[in-house]
Amino acid sequence: MSKGLPKRSEDYSAWYNELVKRAELAETSEVRGCMVIKPYGYAIWEKMQAQLDKMFKATGHTNAYFPLFIPKSYLSKEADHVEGFAKECAVVTHHRLKNAEDGSGVVVDPEAKLEEELIVRPTSETVIWNSYKNWIQSYRDLPLLINQWANVVRWELRTRLFLRTAEFLWQEGHTAHATREEAVEETVRMMNVYAEFAEKHMALPVLRGVKTESERFAGALDTYCIEALMQDGKALQAGTSHFLGQNFAKAFDVKFATKEGGLEHVWGTSWGVSTRLMGALIMAHSDDNGLVLPPKLAPIQVVIVPIFRKSEELEAISQKVAGIKEQLEELGVSVKFDDRDTHKPGWKFAEYELKGVPLRLAMGPRDLENGTVEIARRDTLEKQTYQFDEALPQTIKKLLDTIQEEVYNKALQFREEKTYRVDSYEEMKEVLEEKGGFISAHWDGTAETEAKIKEETKATIRCIPLNNEQEEGKCIYSGKPSSQRVIFAKAY
Amino acid sequence: MSKGLPKRSEDYSAWYNELVKRAELAETSEVRGCMVIKPYGYAIWEKMQAQLDKMFKATGHTNAYFPLFIPKSYLSKEADHVEGFAKECAVVTHHRLKNAEDGSGVVVDPEAKLEEELIVRPTSETVIWNSYKNWIQSYRDLPLLINQWANVVRWELRTRLFLRTAEFLWQEGHTAHATREEAVEETVRMMNVYAEFAEKHMALPVLRGVKTESERFAGALDTYCIEALMQDGKALQAGTSHFLGQNFAKAFDVKFATKEGGLEHVWGTSWGVSTRLMGALIMAHSDDNGLVLPPKLAPIQVVIVPIFRKSEELEAISQKVAGIKEQLEELGVSVKFDDRDTHKPGWKFAEYELKGVPLRLAMGPRDLENGTVEIARRDTLEKQTYQFDEALPQTIKKLLDTIQEEVYNKALQFREEKTYRVDSYEEMKEVLEEKGGFISAHWDGTAETEAKIKEETKATIRCIPLNNEQEEGKCIYSGKPSSQRVIFAKAY
Repeated sequence: MSKGLPKRSEDYSAWYNELVKRAELAETSEVRGCMVIKPYGYAIWEKMQAQLDKMFKATGHTNAYFPLFIPKSYLSKEADHVEGFAKECAVVTHHRLKNAEDGSGVVVDPEAKLEEELIVRPTSETVIWNSYKNWIQSYRDLPLLINQWANVVRWELRTRLFLRTAEFLWQEGHTAHATREEAVEETVRMMNVYAEFAEKHMALPVLRGVKTESERFAGALDTYCIEALMQDGKALQAGTSHFLGQNFAKAFDVKFATKEGGLEHVWGTSWGVSTRLMGALIMAHSDDNGLVLPPKLAPIQVVIVPIFRKSEELEAISQKVAGIKEQLEELGVSVKFDDRDTHKPGWKFAEYELKGVPLRLAMGPRDLENGTVEIARRDTLEKQTYQFDEALPQTIKKLLDTIQEEVYNKALQFREEKTYRVDSYEEMKEVLEEKGGFISAHWDGTAETEAKIKEETKATIRCIPLNNEQEEGKCIYSGKPSSQRVIFAKAY
Repeated sequence: MSKGLPKRSEDYSAWYNELVKRAELAETSEVRGCMVIKPYGYAIWEKMQAQLDKMFKATGHTNAYFPLFIPKSYLSKEADHVEGFAKECAVVTHHRLKNAEDGSGVVVDPEAKLEEELIVRPTSETVIWNSYKNWIQSYRDLPLLINQWANVVRWELRTRLFLRTAEFLWQEGHTAHATREEAVEETVRMMNVYAEFAEKHMALPVLRGVKTESERFAGALDTYCIEALMQDGKALQAGTSHFLGQNFAKAFDVKFATKEGGLEHVWGTSWGVSTRLMGALIMAHSDDNGLVLPPKLAPIQVVIVPIFRKSEELEAISQKVAGIKEQLEELGVSVKFDDRDTHKPGWKFAEYELKGVPLRLAMGPRDLENGTVEIARRDTLEKQTYQFDEALPQTIKKLLDTIQEEVYNKALQFREEKTYRVDSYEEMKEVLEEKGGFISAHWDGTAETEAKIKEETKATIRCIPLNNEQEEGKCIYSGKPSSQRVIFAKAY
């Protein structure tokens, strides 16, 4: 393994790109804008999926699957939605190739032109609400709580692995309710599910809040979000949950017979997180040596590296560790014993550091003699010698819990240190320039001011925090009266 | 719920379509050729996925994800492959829509034409081998054992839910090996994994065999398959595993440094099963009352229906069954207690019969008095009264195992009765006409004969069974010498 990632302090962006590549998480493909998620990266995504899916089911949702293609005309049915999504997208216009007459390969058969073009879904509200029209007749059919795991495509000009790619993987929840209150409740519930997932599993502290009108999802009345802070001081939107009002119900004519015998449009929500979370996970915790993974999402939680010269030594170590591997697995800990003789221990140490394996156990002939084992924590890089005794499996399990907690605490402390209350535009620009981070400042509530600030500083309003403290103040830009602070930041 | 599916004996095809619809498994969407997999159908698919994924991982495979789009030129790289797959497919030609000048909606922006068209993957060999080129340098990188869960698109003119749709869900394994032997071994291993899954989990007996040259996967040297028999006497190919030789390695220039210092092309395999398995599952076991699901794939294995008039009765029954629900769940059995007062017990009985829930427990006031419960088996429709005692959870668990076994045995017996050894073409045509089923007959081994028989009877060679008995005989069509019987059938 070649040495040395770029340093975060010198080139954060290059550090990220190199880390994603060297840790074998993903790579760009030759297909424009599309990534290949490699087995190690996909294993982390699978752990995310499994946990999220469990949380969705625990809150009453079931999975289903809807078509990849959306007829062009569907997109036009909801006016805001078409503005937001019908622009940069993959358009299927033909359904056949044929052999080129000059023998040069295959060409599009002009006779196989579709009557109506199909769009590869950028999001599925339209195609799903078109189905809901037939699924919902009565209040008895509500609430309808459905989630879909799928790939989506948004034609992006500048792509970055996990953070912004033309094709990405995600889940999209789409629910229908009898009342506005229930739909709002669902929207908030799912934002909270996302926040809990981020904090408890990704070890990533997030702000919960509401987007301003200009940052809302196209077609929503309100967009709730979770916002995380990366180590370079930039914000990353990690998940959104949209209150759609009756917009899609009206666009697709989805009505239900009420208990009282009336006929009303249903209320909708949609919510999603994507492989973008992989980017957040990587950027939030990792260091100049490589990935740092919170134990709950690490495909390998513990790696055991034997240190040996002779095969008898390996034999003795293998016998010694066989039991502990089994005991750990019974405790639900995933363990890898790397007994390859094609690589030296030092190479393996660096490899597992790069891949973010939370705990590394090393055992050599001297450990065997002394009945000890050396345990290295990936997050702190601390090494400590432990007795190799009956208590060891539980010690390791507790260490993993400790790491999970401390990785979170470290990220939380970082965020707190990087959150600045500013009271003037000058101060804000200075902070943005010199420190980055979340900026809590008064805003007059107008889209004009928001747009000006964005234009001049590239900072956007990440969210109006939930249960925000009300406080008299003056907008840092316009000086007009303001009743609360909002969170600004430069963002991914 | 409205009564009466079409009868299998009267209109098998209508029975299937209605069953899929009424059991809420899937429906056709307004998007041409694409289906919507509804929550109940998707729940079955999820159980299939989970089990298959476990089996793939147990045989050393890991998951990854490759691009949805394939540049047109990739398809031309492997000559047979392009013939097989570059015909009816979805072609992306543009990457932007714009507002129509007349305000009528959105239109394709002619300025956003792609330099090279992209094909929505009909299968991923080309895009994956294009990556493998960079992933494989040395024998140390082999074997490479990767699987992908994905959606694929093949433009089909005549579609049927689950059996043949333009878009479908599947998994595709793609492996690379240092030697021909290893690759063949892998191909056979995965066919066996599929067969084991079909038999043990889907309760579906399958023939294991090899395809004839004309039925091979485009680009493969050999295609292994599992073939199942449906209740209408038609065959269904339930899974295929392809030995690709060095075809794709050569097309994409994938070479590895051997241990001995040479440089060789790697050997490949690919293998897949799809949502087509849902069609097989439905058609193999279900009856005129609805679905029959093998317990291992049933989203709800046991439903408990309380029979009550007064709310005190429901209260008493609820208390009684709460314990057993918990005990069954501890045994890994999924249980639903349907205490809705909006539907009568008779309606619920028909509903769960339609949905194929393997066991139905009914409990009324008299059962409460007597300490009994009525248990109905979905597969046999038999009802029996059991003591409601401590042994009940284990009794139920054993009943589920019995059902799993007997559903399989029934399908096996059906297949055996429907497998005919014929020794003349006349006899074969008669069997095809009157009985359907698998026909074991001598064939001269030529593609010409195979094509003639297909043309005249619509029957195809499903497979040359594995470890086929060698037997001197004469081809039923040409009269030429033949060394073995092969399996003919009309097929889905």
